[in-house]
Amino acid sequence: MTTPFTILVIHGPNLNLLGKREPDIYGHRTLENINLMIYERSRSMGVDVKIFQSNTEGAIIDFIQENMEASGIIINPGAYTHTSVALRDAIASVNLPAVEVHLSNIHAREEFRRESLIAPVCLGQICGFGANSYILGLEAIKAFLLEQIDRRR
Amino acid sequence: MTTPFTILVIHGPNLNLLGKREPDIYGHRTLENINLMIYERSRSMGVDVKIFQSNTEGAIIDFIQENMEASGIIINPGAYTHTSVALRDAIASVNLPAVEVHLSNIHAREEFRRESLIAPVCLGQICGFGANSYILGLEAIKAFLLEQIDRRR
Amino acid sequence: MTTPFTILVIHGPNLNLLGKREPDIYGHRTLENINLMIYERSRSMGVDVKIFQSNTEGAIIDFIQENMEASGIIINPGAYTHTSVALRDAIASVNLPAVEVHLSNIHAREEFRRESLIAPVCLGQICGFGANSYILGLEAIKAFLLEQIDRRR
Amino acid sequence: MTTPFTILVIHGPNLNLLGKREPDIYGHRTLENINLMIYERSRSMGVDVKIFQSNTEGAIIDFIQENMEASGIIINPGAYTHTSVALRDAIASVNLPAVEVHLSNIHAREEFRRESLIAPVCLGQICGFGANSYILGLEAIKAFLLEQIDRRR
Amino acid sequence: MTTPFTILVIHGPNLNLLGKREPDIYGHRTLENINLMIYERSRSMGVDVKIFQSNTEGAIIDFIQENMEASGIIINPGAYTHTSVALRDAIASVNLPAVEVHLSNIHAREEFRRESLIAPVCLGQICGFGANSYILGLEAIKAFLLEQIDRRR
Amino acid sequence: MTTPFTILVIHGPNLNLLGKREPDIYGHRTLENINLMIYERSRSMGVDVKIFQSNTEGAIIDFIQENMEASGIIINPGAYTHTSVALRDAIASVNLPAVEVHLSNIHAREEFRRESLIAPVCLGQICGFGANSYILGLEAIKAFLLEQIDRRR
Amino acid sequence: MTTPFTILVIHGPNLNLLGKREPDIYGHRTLENINLMIYERSRSMGVDVKIFQSNTEGAIIDFIQENMEASGIIINPGAYTHTSVALRDAIASVNLPAVEVHLSNIHAREEFRRESLIAPVCLGQICGFGANSYILGLEAIKAFLLEQIDRRR
Amino acid sequence: MTTPFTILVIHGPNLNLLGKREPDIYGHRTLENINLMIYERSRSMGVDVKIFQSNTEGAIIDFIQENMEASGIIINPGAYTHTSVALRDAIASVNLPAVEVHLSNIHAREEFRRESLIAPVCLGQICGFGANSYILGLEAIKAFLLEQIDRRR
Amino acid sequence: MTTPFTILVIHGPNLNLLGKREPDIYGHRTLENINLMIYERSRSMGVDVKIFQSNTEGAIIDFIQENMEASGIIINPGAYTHTSVALRDAIASVNLPAVEVHLSNIHAREEFRRESLIAPVCLGQICGFGANSYILGLEAIKAFLLEQIDRRR
Amino acid sequence: MTTPFTILVIHGPNLNLLGKREPDIYGHRTLENINLMIYERSRSMGVDVKIFQSNTEGAIIDFIQENMEASGIIINPGAYTHTSVALRDAIASVNLPAVEVHLSNIHAREEFRRESLIAPVCLGQICGFGANSYILGLEAIKAFLLEQIDRRR
Amino acid sequence: MTTPFTILVIHGPNLNLLGKREPDIYGHRTLENINLMIYERSRSMGVDVKIFQSNTEGAIIDFIQENMEASGIIINPGAYTHTSVALRDAIASVNLPAVEVHLSNIHAREEFRRESLIAPVCLGQICGFGANSYILGLEAIKAFLLEQIDRRR
Amino acid sequence: MTTPFTILVIHGPNLNLLGKREPDIYGHRTLENINLMIYERSRSMGVDVKIFQSNTEGAIIDFIQENMEASGIIINPGAYTHTSVALRDAIASVNLPAVEVHLSNIHAREEFRRESLIAPVCLGQICGFGANSYILGLEAIKAFLLEQIDRRR
Repeated sequence: MTTPFTILVIHGPNLNLLGKREPDIYGHRTLENINLMIYERSRSMGVDVKIFQSNTEGAIIDFIQENMEASGIIINPGAYTHTSVALRDAIASVNLPAVEVHLSNIHAREEFRRESLIAPVCLGQICGFGANSYILGLEAIKAFLLEQIDRRR
Repeated sequence: MTTPFTILVIHGPNLNLLGKREPDIYGHRTLENINLMIYERSRSMGVDVKIFQSNTEGAIIDFIQENMEASGIIINPGAYTHTSVALRDAIASVNLPAVEVHLSNIHAREEFRRESLIAPVCLGQICGFGANSYILGLEAIKAFLLEQIDRRR
Repeated sequence: MTTPFTILVIHGPNLNLLGKREPDIYGHRTLENINLMIYERSRSMGVDVKIFQSNTEGAIIDFIQENMEASGIIINPGAYTHTSVALRDAIASVNLPAVEVHLSNIHAREEFRRESLIAPVCLGQICGFGANSYILGLEAIKAFLLEQIDRRR
Repeated sequence: MTTPFTILVIHGPNLNLLGKREPDIYGHRTLENINLMIYERSRSMGVDVKIFQSNTEGAIIDFIQENMEASGIIINPGAYTHTSVALRDAIASVNLPAVEVHLSNIHAREEFRRESLIAPVCLGQICGFGANSYILGLEAIKAFLLEQIDRRR
Repeated sequence: MTTPFTILVIHGPNLNLLGKREPDIYGHRTLENINLMIYERSRSMGVDVKIFQSNTEGAIIDFIQENMEASGIIINPGAYTHTSVALRDAIASVNLPAVEVHLSNIHAREEFRRESLIAPVCLGQICGFGANSYILGLEAIKAFLLEQIDRRR
Repeated sequence: MTTPFTILVIHGPNLNLLGKREPDIYGHRTLENINLMIYERSRSMGVDVKIFQSNTEGAIIDFIQENMEASGIIINPGAYTHTSVALRDAIASVNLPAVEVHLSNIHAREEFRRESLIAPVCLGQICGFGANSYILGLEAIKAFLLEQIDRRR
Repeated sequence: MTTPFTILVIHGPNLNLLGKREPDIYGHRTLENINLMIYERSRSMGVDVKIFQSNTEGAIIDFIQENMEASGIIINPGAYTHTSVALRDAIASVNLPAVEVHLSNIHAREEFRRESLIAPVCLGQICGFGANSYILGLEAIKAFLLEQIDRRR
Repeated sequence: MTTPFTILVIHGPNLNLLGKREPDIYGHRTLENINLMIYERSRSMGVDVKIFQSNTEGAIIDFIQENMEASGIIINPGAYTHTSVALRDAIASVNLPAVEVHLSNIHAREEFRRESLIAPVCLGQICGFGANSYILGLEAIKAFLLEQIDRRR
Repeated sequence: MTTPFTILVIHGPNLNLLGKREPDIYGHRTLENINLMIYERSRSMGVDVKIFQSNTEGAIIDFIQENMEASGIIINPGAYTHTSVALRDAIASVNLPAVEVHLSNIHAREEFRRESLIAPVCLGQICGFGANSYILGLEAIKAFLLEQIDRRR
Repeated sequence: MTTPFTILVIHGPNLNLLGKREPDIYGHRTLENINLMIYERSRSMGVDVKIFQSNTEGAIIDFIQENMEASGIIINPGAYTHTSVALRDAIASVNLPAVEVHLSNIHAREEFRRESLIAPVCLGQICGFGANSYILGLEAIKAFLLEQIDRRR
Repeated sequence: MTTPFTILVIHGPNLNLLGKREPDIYGHRTLENINLMIYERSRSMGVDVKIFQSNTEGAIIDFIQENMEASGIIINPGAYTHTSVALRDAIASVNLPAVEVHLSNIHAREEFRRESLIAPVCLGQICGFGANSYILGLEAIKAFLLEQIDRRR
Repeated sequence: MTTPFTILVIHGPNLNLLGKREPDIYGHRTLENINLMIYERSRSMGVDVKIFQSNTEGAIIDFIQENMEASGIIINPGAYTHTSVALRDAIASVNLPAVEVHLSNIHAREEFRRESLIAPVCLGQICGFGANSYILGLEAIKAFLLEQIDRRR
């Protein structure tokens, strides 16, 4: 029996260019390729995913608000990590467990990429493991959701 | 005889979730409920209102630019209060009297919510009175507009 | 039947010079003139006011402590807005609902006038509407007090 | 024989209001008027231009991504100059030579308008010459592209 | 034989409200109650005390200047701890050994309450022990004065 | 014929202790002694002076407001130099030419004594010449007033 | 066939108190309990672990230097995350892939716990998932090591 | 009947050099001498003490963890006051009432010695009274413990 | 008919080493070579130039003051961009239109090279286009001067 | 009998342009005119002056070093006030009493003009009184020198 | 005849890894190799050395305290340069002449490696010359000690 | 056989006053005396030196540029250490090995003397050993040059 979890997987601005862009930082994998891997791995975990990418801050907020019935959020906020209070408020207001993920280790990059406005309203942050960051995030959120079910029993 | 004033009432990002979101900060009223109250009170003041909500910074700027013939602006910029220079420029450029309003007392919240990029291009700021902040804003802007008419005479 | 509310209206340092002072910032109205308007408007709202002005930080604190039985406070702390932790503590300790008001839009003036030590212990802040800021403050506090009575029922 | 160059010319938020807006800072020219001049001058330089304006950060990023085959970018990021890491990442990721231009001298304005998040990923910055900044930008980028061709030979 | 020491005990602004004010921070004891304890304990130590409270910065300075013949000062400067250079200068200028005391642990409160303008001109600081801070201060200053007498012999 | 000028000479907090206090910074002269010198020198300049000292910020503001008919102000704000926005506003609002003076060279002392909140609303600042700073201030203000008369002719 | 990987698992200061300490932040699990889980899970992953805890900065550095032949490091540096340049240098100098893990979401705690001196010399950071952070770290490092082997082939 | 209290008395780095070191700041008393006084005074208070000194951050943490059954802690953290988050966490995690003491008045020394990482997790801070700071700390903690017993009754 | 414009072209410190110095930042062109290009291009624009280089701040100021009759200034202030208030004052005081130019994109270099003390008193800034920055500067200033003549007519 | 004092009067960069430059800040007087007044007034004071102006930091330092036998220094360092540690060291090293003067009130101008690197090594500072600042400076230094002679007797 | 000097040579954390660690920063020499050179060169200088390395802050402090009879200290504090107030206090308290040395030029590395907590209590600092920094340090301290002997004679 | 090395020895502003200036910081030795010692010691090292002193930033840059054929630079930049980006650029652009030296320990002086703009473009820094700093610098640079010759072989 599969768990009834649906996880939103959100890619922020410019992530649609993955594989075409600064490969020494982000690797050669395209977003389509990563999404395939996410679908495949989530299926084997027994979790449903709903994947979304946008370059527009407001469109990402709309997507979150329109999917409030989901079980959790995996979000790679890209550049909005460092500038979007609105995205932070959206995650806080839908009251879903969220995990912030990054392909690169943001703590090893430019000063302004080290601080996250989003992480304080998430369960936690996973960064630096390439596309694997998304998979680790899925595992983290699945474990969290199962633990919550255990507690309620 | 009613005044010929049309006031734009603008709700920024995530305000459409009101009543569903962090009720100990923002209360249990939904945005629809607040809008009804604004319509009702503005009618009794003899003022027309045009209400708009969006999660997208650019869409709010578009709305302001497309309604430059209005008499004034009541704006609750939500999270864009603290991050949007573009919204500030939009308000400054249409040259309409504007009032920044907030449901909560932003000066009693997190440090980063205390500074407003928008307030310096407004007539003033009203915050901390829940939905009543909008009504006080309408009264403030109506009084300002009447005073301007008086002066011109 | 009038409400049983008595509101303290406190003018901070130099406000007694109003009308004689920098009229392009504060307008031509004297404090006497503003006080008359406050008396008149409060009467029509069915609210009692007790007005006080002093240039001395300690004297304002004394006034607040000696009037702890009032229903609420409207305070224009003038320059003490930015420097008086003692005034902040006084308002916090008497545990009365308070509204900080300013004639001018402090967010559009010198950097050091944008931060308020007082606002975090108030219900909210209203600034930028000239003498009307006091009237809006009275309305805000009256609405707050009525709502509290409603809740207790 | 004309050069085979196509240059994207991007106007950021509120620039569509030019000529209607704060004329002592930006002059009386409308954006339509400026665009006409850009078309005319670019034609005489033997360069094609593709002009775009939007108030939405994400829409500008979309436009850049959808036009990755262009030869270069002239961008007046308006207010996004100071707030958009996402726009910076977009320019960096498409790997096109870009020139940041401004109508006004941003170094002579408010403190927060002096720092550009965009300039570090551009060839350079040209500001302070009104609509002529765009023409100088076109000349700069054309010279750069011709020099690159020379080098490759 | 009692020591001939007279110690000034000074309570700063709002301390006269003690017991009526934020009891989870300051406890339920009134200032009268604390003063009684101070009188009693000082008597048993063989020390005279002269107690003073004021909400006015200048009045506290006047009191210090008018009692320059005292042996030492115990001062709880309340909110003036963080804002009064004038009080600091007054203590420095009368050249008496002084001890700064606080009921609460100021190092565990808001950031702005952690820095003291007064402590650098005192012998030391004692904070966090409720009314007992005053008694510890009396003991500290008595020991200091006795040691000074010892040294002079 | 003497000039009809009356100059307010204001001594801020703790200056009444002069001569009794930190003599290596301020010298051995008492305030009485300095005042005598001021009276004598002002008489020989043909200028009237009205001297005032207080430790209370509000009392100094009251004195300034009650003497708005004077020709100018010499003020040694003492510790209020660095903390009193209210005193700054008082001087700005009475619209009298003012000179800030200090006995010691404040630019050679602790960091926090180098910035003056008062100087920006004065004609200028004179510091570092002991009691002679007051005399230089009187000469400066007299010269300024005579020049103003010349200009008006 | 098991992989030949040995992973160092390092617990920093005070982590030996887990389960006895601030359970609302760190949960009720003891370190022994967590270590058992780590042993069990690593065995099922086919990875060897070598676990170490110390309260002494230098002892942790010694342990890392004495185990330079390991395949990688999972480190929860505890409080040394924010203060130890020496630990950072140790990790950088042994040139092993490392993952920083934390039980709690350090980005949602006190300001001084948000910055890591260690993360910039690691592959990445995983925080906020309780004891599961260690397991996710093991998976991340195993995937990284396998990928490196793949690349070398 | 003696109280059943055992108080840990912890001396941080370099305090073992007391009496041999910078005597104009710390006085001529050796640590042995101070410890004798502490033993003597604690005996007369009916309190047991367990004294410890180390130059190693981790060793002090070990000592605290190994003595969690004590009633309270007097700690002079020496230089670790300003640099050790690990020591702060140790004190917070054993959940014992602690008092931070210093021989010298740290608020009157170099800027970097004014901020304490330890004080926020203690009951309070006592500094500036030489060896007497320890005795005052013992009195403070004994009073606190007795009061707790009273409350429980 | 040539325009009657004489433009000062000023090269700041170390620019005489161009071509010999850090070629990956500044290219291989010598200053002599650049000057030749400037002479040639200015002649074809119908503009006279007067070129000057010095390593001494004061000598550059002298040159500007001695050529106040010129029509405008192109200045590459080199390192004085970031340190010379005196050069800024010189440009402001001669009241000539000036353009700041740089060979490299200063916004993409070390933090301390991003802020210009000179730009705020110039028409604008052009940077990042190698020697072409000077030519673009000449065009910008010529266009500005012609426009001024147009306006006066 | 005249005093045997020779006072160096030093004008910093750009002051030679006085009267030709930004007259609303510095007035219409030329430097020649001011120097005439200084010669005249110094003669009537019985003091010799040696006047010097340069735009070069090093030349001013040379002048000071070559005139170490003078009795004192009046210096208007112009822009070097805010940038020249070398000038500060020169004044400190010749060990002459110096007075820093400014025509304008530097405390009422741009932020970066408020801090003086020179004032801490001077007797004091006089600013804001136009050319009269020099005369007041001469009086201040003469009084200081006479007082020194008195003391030595 | 050799001088009777014994110099402590202290290597801080991670320096035992030299030659194995980041060779582009620190070179290929091992610590053993450097120590041999130090022994050899010190012998030829007629100076005794006592060499010590530890990764533990407290152990280095212990070593310094246990060798107070030495003539001087050469210390490469490694990472503790930037974090250890305790080490600073240890050096200050033993009152021995000390020289801080570094293999690399710390002023050319990361921002946080530029500030030394240790240097202010040393005679001076020598950095950037690889292993030769130690030899230069030995020469510096020997010269200092000989000069002191000269002075005493 | 002597090495063919010529080392520039540069003394910055005010160093010509050595021995006449603040002797408790810089000692009683004159610059002539130091130069004699440098000549003597360099001769015994088999190194040629070319010594230069100037108070003018630009003159020092000229000297460096005119002596680009030298083997290395010893520079005591005096006050220009902290203010001259131009001097930094000069040293970087001639591409010679340089050593920054100081007589005093700049890390133990005023805050603003601790940061060097010059050191990051040098091999290293030597400070705090009086005139001996120059000799140690010569030894350091000679060793560096010899090592370079070794490597090339």
